[in-house]
Amino acid sequence: MRIITISREFGSGGRELGKRLAEIMGFDYYDREIITAIADSSGLDANYVENALETGIWQRVPLTFHNSFASKAVFQASHINLLSEQTKVIEGIAKAGHDCVIVGRNADVLLAKENPFTIFVCADLEAKVRRCMERAPENEQLTRKELEQNIRRVDKNRAQTHEILTGSKWGQGSTYHLTVNTSSWDIKKLAPAVAEIASRWFEQREG
Amino acid sequence: MRIITISREFGSGGRELGKRLAEIMGFDYYDREIITAIADSSGLDANYVENALETGIWQRVPLTFHNSFASKAVFQASHINLLSEQTKVIEGIAKAGHDCVIVGRNADVLLAKENPFTIFVCADLEAKVRRCMERAPENEQLTRKELEQNIRRVDKNRAQTHEILTGSKWGQGSTYHLTVNTSSWDIKKLAPAVAEIASRWFEQREG
Repeated sequence: MRIITISREFGSGGRELGKRLAEIMGFDYYDREIITAIADSSGLDANYVENALETGIWQRVPLTFHNSFASKAVFQASHINLLSEQTKVIEGIAKAGHDCVIVGRNADVLLAKENPFTIFVCADLEAKVRRCMERAPENEQLTRKELEQNIRRVDKNRAQTHEILTGSKWGQGSTYHLTVNTSSWDIKKLAPAVAEIASRWFEQREG
Repeated sequence: MRIITISREFGSGGRELGKRLAEIMGFDYYDREIITAIADSSGLDANYVENALETGIWQRVPLTFHNSFASKAVFQASHINLLSEQTKVIEGIAKAGHDCVIVGRNADVLLAKENPFTIFVCADLEAKVRRCMERAPENEQLTRKELEQNIRRVDKNRAQTHEILTGSKWGQGSTYHLTVNTSSWDIKKLAPAVAEIASRWFEQREG
């Protein structure tokens, strides 16, 4: 089974790249589907689940507490063990055995034993703000400053979750097979070339 | 003119990747040639020049001194202004106007106005040690520990030089267009796919 995981900075276009990779390679695609599955199994609202996973879980945990004792305390402190549900859902995807692209959700860490091809997608702050502005729903009129704060907050939480789960640095080149800065790319043109790299890597892994 | 710059961790295979990219794309290749040119123009030994640029120049400069006053002081303190020579040589390469791959030497920073495609090559420590051991000359029998120290020392100096020149972080994904971890790659298989990405990027840049 070939799995591609995409970790991404908020607003970097990681989701678009993931979708296009899945299309080009004929892989299944998982992103929001994971949130829906957690919501279904926990009986919680999908938006609540997404928000809790993006911003809530670690916010009162000092980053220095990496050991399992501290992790347990955090798990107990959260009313519903959303991360554990997430792990179940992601392991379920792997068990199904289909080639797939998974965006976010620490799938790179949770599925490490499946030896996925891991991609990190980043961009300059300016490019991320631009992308967020282009994609904002009409009723969501954030100021530039609010958008920047939003980007920093989400990325900080992603970095902390990754570090607590693995001890390794989110967004550092050597943590992933490939890191792409999308700032100066049309992602439509980038995707086929990234698909080529991933295909070659799987070929090599299998052969 | 299309320029590809390769920044790399010591032992990551950045030089091999650069050579192969140049071959595949029909670009000129610069690496050791730059050292030779500096040696020629300064009348110094090439090995001395390489060593001074890799390890010597910044060693007594606190990393917090990023401003031009401090930079000037450093320049004055070194007997020969090797970095300035290096800049001249690299700008000379750009003036020649040929498509090229340049490995190391902060070419990504020095040639920023030429809008190069910038690549960072990294690898896990284990892979870097293995690569260094395979490539060591027979008369250079370093222990594993000495090798690790060597890798850390060279990389630390490269990071400091980059940070002093630019204020941006060496080895951080968003500093480069593409970051590749070579640990699980046969570089021969990786190179054509990276060439494909670079070609697409130049195509897009040229509109």
